[in-house]
Amino acid sequence: MIVLFTDFGLEGPYTGQVEAVLCAQAPGVRVIHLFSDLAPFDIQSAAYLLPAFVGRFPPGTVFLCVVDPGVGGNRPGVIARIAGHWFVGPNEGLFAPLTRRAVSVECWQLPDSDTASPSFHGRDVFAPVAARLARGLAPVGEAVDAAFLEQASWLDDLPRIVYIDRYGNAMTGLRASVVPPDAVLTINGHTLHAARTFADVGVGQAFWYENANGLVEFAVNRGRADAVLSLSVGDVISL
Amino acid sequence: MIVLFTDFGLEGPYTGQVEAVLCAQAPGVRVIHLFSDLAPFDIQSAAYLLPAFVGRFPPGTVFLCVVDPGVGGNRPGVIARIAGHWFVGPNEGLFAPLTRRAVSVECWQLPDSDTASPSFHGRDVFAPVAARLARGLAPVGEAVDAAFLEQASWLDDLPRIVYIDRYGNAMTGLRASVVPPDAVLTINGHTLHAARTFADVGVGQAFWYENANGLVEFAVNRGRADAVLSLSVGDVISL
Amino acid sequence: MIVLFTDFGLEGPYTGQVEAVLCAQAPGVRVIHLFSDLAPFDIQSAAYLLPAFVGRFPPGTVFLCVVDPGVGGNRPGVIARIAGHWFVGPNEGLFAPLTRRAVSVECWQLPDSDTASPSFHGRDVFAPVAARLARGLAPVGEAVDAAFLEQASWLDDLPRIVYIDRYGNAMTGLRASVVPPDAVLTINGHTLHAARTFADVGVGQAFWYENANGLVEFAVNRGRADAVLSLSVGDVISL
Repeated sequence: MIVLFTDFGLEGPYTGQVEAVLCAQAPGVRVIHLFSDLAPFDIQSAAYLLPAFVGRFPPGTVFLCVVDPGVGGNRPGVIARIAGHWFVGPNEGLFAPLTRRAVSVECWQLPDSDTASPSFHGRDVFAPVAARLARGLAPVGEAVDAAFLEQASWLDDLPRIVYIDRYGNAMTGLRASVVPPDAVLTINGHTLHAARTFADVGVGQAFWYENANGLVEFAVNRGRADAVLSLSVGDVISL
Repeated sequence: MIVLFTDFGLEGPYTGQVEAVLCAQAPGVRVIHLFSDLAPFDIQSAAYLLPAFVGRFPPGTVFLCVVDPGVGGNRPGVIARIAGHWFVGPNEGLFAPLTRRAVSVECWQLPDSDTASPSFHGRDVFAPVAARLARGLAPVGEAVDAAFLEQASWLDDLPRIVYIDRYGNAMTGLRASVVPPDAVLTINGHTLHAARTFADVGVGQAFWYENANGLVEFAVNRGRADAVLSLSVGDVISL
Repeated sequence: MIVLFTDFGLEGPYTGQVEAVLCAQAPGVRVIHLFSDLAPFDIQSAAYLLPAFVGRFPPGTVFLCVVDPGVGGNRPGVIARIAGHWFVGPNEGLFAPLTRRAVSVECWQLPDSDTASPSFHGRDVFAPVAARLARGLAPVGEAVDAAFLEQASWLDDLPRIVYIDRYGNAMTGLRASVVPPDAVLTINGHTLHAARTFADVGVGQAFWYENANGLVEFAVNRGRADAVLSLSVGDVISL
């Protein structure tokens, strides 16, 4: 299984072009669109989302992860192997929180490509590598120390909004496991208590809860938290 | 074949997470994204869309249908078998018009889950059941009378806008078969005559027609009916 | 492999209904969503995008291409075979630039359908033909001269914006190969120089470049060209 975690968009040609490469080079492998609408250029928000979503996928899953504002520059590409999963993408920090929390990490630096388009390494560099790994072949590139992975000087958890979904729910970069279950959280001047789920609060009421992927999330029962609380990606949470 | 009929969105993680479960538990079964952008929380609009779309799918198709404002509360999950198709989802009224028009309905109540996330039964409860049915296995849960299905006290047809598509065409909850072909329909103060299709009226002209799925739909030739007629989901039609 | 190139949208039912037909009539064939968000009714913009994207697909790929404002009227449907690829869709000009640049074109006129919905030939006429071709069967319809293909009196290249992607980058109908690499291009009063890629200009700077599919594209490093340059589909470029 190959899982796409990108800012390419589902509409427009980019995800389709990547999938066509995967389809040609790893026939019969299923492709899952996990996120295609990560905030463009925003590596940090994506980096704190990623670890929340990988645990449910079976061993051997290949994650093709691309938020790549530096495409065409001299940032290297990388393969990481963490807890039985493969990760492929540009080495710009996207794997930092995942790596920091891992027991062990294996890492390979991808060779430079002479033929890749300077603006679409997702299709020309990373997709062929993902297809290869999904077929069970060995990583390409040079094995390097895990310290090669870009280790941004970021916190263990990120007290910010990292994604707003189509319901208007706002995911944060905070694992619920590091926040006391009765914590009162403040965002944009709003003070919010915890609830188990939507049905446990009144219609229109805002709350925070541990979402289905283990992250702290702001929500409103049958309403839009982004509208009610004026939330945007990047907004800061105070505990 | 498993058909998704949800308000989960294609972008963001939810549909991908559901598809990953289907992929792992029903390998080789194709997944069709029929609707992923049903209006959040709006069970009634979705309920009148569903029957228009099921007839074209082959016997044995499993429809995973989730518009679930009550997730995590005590509403039960349900399996229905109607005219050779399977339907799985929360029992909150989504299957009411379908059931009312059916000759016979078989029904099973899903057992409560101890392990499901309280906010994502689509992934944790309904997808595993859909995968199981798609593999040809027997339904889980307790066989119950068809009267167990939530039978909202709704009309046979719904004279309201239930969905607006990307062209700005507005589908209604009215089957064209119950409206006289020369009916003049009024919506938001606009009086509209019928046409066979777009090419039969002048550019910019608004009309109603029987759409490709048998529903009354408002449209404008080479224009947006939602803009020209100021239409929103929920607006009421007068005959 | 069947490639969808349409204005149907991924959300809503249309692409799913088409894919269900392909899935039933060409089991095991992969379906790639290349473009689902072409500008509605805008055949010309789509026509100049198409040739930039076909070359990367393997021989035998079937392109299902539908931007069809004339659906239900008397425009015929068509199959074209160009450079080992199949193209299926309405004969309204979408294949004109592709055909003009081709060494040889084979062409078939599709028979009229008595059973197709007058508003959804994508599902009822073109998808079954695409499925048939993808299975390796012979074209249906009557072999006709290539001159039968609608040959709009359009330029070889179109100096207009034809698509704006989710990053705000604006693709044009100009092949980069026909523009001098040091050309200075003007659009909406903005004068822009060329760069190789994003990382080669300063943050916030606008430029034009040869995109990953060989077209001239306007972009801003870590910004939105559509916002910075006030661009819309249809805007004219001066060399």
